[in-house]
Amino acid sequence: MTIQSVEWNQETNVLRILDQRQLPHKVIFVDAVSIEEVWEAITFLKVRGAPAIGIAAAFGLVLWSEEKQSNQLELFLDELRAKRDYLATSRPTAVNLFWAIDRVIEAAIKAKSVEEAKKRCVFEAIAIQEEDRNTCRKIGEFGLELLEEGDTVLTICNAGGIATAQYGTALAPFYLAKERDIELKAYACETRPVLQGARLTAWELQQLGTDVTLITDSMAAHVLKTKNITAVIVGADRIAANGDTANKIGTYGLAILATAHDIPFYVAAPFSTIDLNTSTGEDIPIEERAPQEVTHLQGVALAPDGTKVFNPAFDVVPNELISGIITEKGLIEGDFEKKLQALKNDSVHV
Amino acid sequence: MTIQSVEWNQETNVLRILDQRQLPHKVIFVDAVSIEEVWEAITFLKVRGAPAIGIAAAFGLVLWSEEKQSNQLELFLDELRAKRDYLATSRPTAVNLFWAIDRVIEAAIKAKSVEEAKKRCVFEAIAIQEEDRNTCRKIGEFGLELLEEGDTVLTICNAGGIATAQYGTALAPFYLAKERDIELKAYACETRPVLQGARLTAWELQQLGTDVTLITDSMAAHVLKTKNITAVIVGADRIAANGDTANKIGTYGLAILATAHDIPFYVAAPFSTIDLNTSTGEDIPIEERAPQEVTHLQGVALAPDGTKVFNPAFDVVPNELISGIITEKGLIEGDFEKKLQALKNDSVHV
Repeated sequence: MTIQSVEWNQETNVLRILDQRQLPHKVIFVDAVSIEEVWEAITFLKVRGAPAIGIAAAFGLVLWSEEKQSNQLELFLDELRAKRDYLATSRPTAVNLFWAIDRVIEAAIKAKSVEEAKKRCVFEAIAIQEEDRNTCRKIGEFGLELLEEGDTVLTICNAGGIATAQYGTALAPFYLAKERDIELKAYACETRPVLQGARLTAWELQQLGTDVTLITDSMAAHVLKTKNITAVIVGADRIAANGDTANKIGTYGLAILATAHDIPFYVAAPFSTIDLNTSTGEDIPIEERAPQEVTHLQGVALAPDGTKVFNPAFDVVPNELISGIITEKGLIEGDFEKKLQALKNDSVHV
Repeated sequence: MTIQSVEWNQETNVLRILDQRQLPHKVIFVDAVSIEEVWEAITFLKVRGAPAIGIAAAFGLVLWSEEKQSNQLELFLDELRAKRDYLATSRPTAVNLFWAIDRVIEAAIKAKSVEEAKKRCVFEAIAIQEEDRNTCRKIGEFGLELLEEGDTVLTICNAGGIATAQYGTALAPFYLAKERDIELKAYACETRPVLQGARLTAWELQQLGTDVTLITDSMAAHVLKTKNITAVIVGADRIAANGDTANKIGTYGLAILATAHDIPFYVAAPFSTIDLNTSTGEDIPIEERAPQEVTHLQGVALAPDGTKVFNPAFDVVPNELISGIITEKGLIEGDFEKKLQALKNDSVHV
């Protein structure tokens, strides 16, 4: 079993969380036994990655409900809703967080007793985690169909197993390849400013036993030209109705560079990342973050005092640079707008 | 007067060297009074940038000759040649170093007395510095002709005044603009792995009073798309006979990104950077450097232990991505192969 971001122990009612802040230097798990500890783990970034945050939060509600001694259903549910609101303050911008804790509430309110409500909470949290695992596994399978033994994939940031229940999105093909004894190689862009590529992706693929080479983001063009790269595969933060994709800063440049070298550029993401209410990438707001992320690294100043900085956290890849979107429903190619719309409320595969 | 990398004081026979290792946090000048101190300054990278290294080395020979008490011309010249060989060991790959110290030797051997030889040494060193200053100034003038009030230029690495006698190459237009009260803005790519952009270019342009914004290399595509960039201007380590240009890693990617956004991409370099013996970029060897430059920063580990790294120090921009080469002979555009050949042994301008 590969390392998991979040693991529920049904015997002991303990949520084991991988402390991603310590990576790659220390692999430390923390055992959360209360909702407060889960709140802290999310707030202080021990757990990161939208799906993993959602799963942790769902189990946060489970931890509270399992502890709660009560046989008054209405009071129990009222208090559960209050705990949901409390958890919602842990990371106010992570959409998966709200989605996951609301699912737990929806499940609980159907119960006819406190006992049943508690069971429904734990079943729903397990279901959320299991569904995410299955989604990512399918993304891995569809992604792997695009690759062959010996191929080399370049990626950016960490769309890996530790950001999800398991397998990840952009990294999912590597897990499936490993299971099937297919050898793939990876180049990981370090992903300045926060270095998720160097700290997390290089580490995660090393754990998996995949041949991974770390480069600075500035080396991508030279690598695409000289290192026989089969494909670029990246994750996504939001996909607009026309296929335009927001992802970690640097992704847009990679898409241009891949296209210039006739190398396919794929986005790997759960279908839930597609937001049909956002028509194009133009409508996706780009978060700008603190200048210190660029000017400092682990407390060390890299630039002169008072340096003016532009620090957008994301950029947008226009759909014409995307060869395909790999989802749990299959590979989506061609007219993204039409196909995404058709697939959105459809359980069939591409 | 702007800050100078190397400054000779003719009254006191002292060579004042800007210690670039301390930048941007401390602006420290070291006074070299002996050839040994110059050797150390070059070896331990207090002075960097091929032209600045050459100038420092030339004055290294001057420092020795000024100290030397002798009236035996042949013995003096023999010892001067030995000191030339000693200085040559300070940074064995910097071509400008050999070129500069050989020029001093050539000048000295024409002398008819030790007294005259000493004078010739100091005159030649001053001439080397003065010529470099003039060359860079002309590059700045020709570069500035491509720009207008309010324009914004994106650059990478540090092809600045502190790498030369004065003005720099890619940054020279900013100095000329400042003199003429023309407002230009700059975006500086931080230039991983060694961060010359963050440490040196951001600092140098701040000193000049230019509005400079620091970005990570991964932000270049997003900036080229959204920030109304007029031109990308970069330096060069070597230019092949057909115009293919080797420069700091990341430059090739920038050239592709500029082209994709219909933004002119210029190389600014002294004509001496053009090597007609190198037919194309294919023939330029790419130096690979230590993995620690990527995995560590000021002693702090950024990636897991044992991470495999690819660390090319340079990449090559093919001529078709270059809008023009800005030299002291003017802007070269179009058929680089033909024009570079014609201009090489020609003192006329383009």
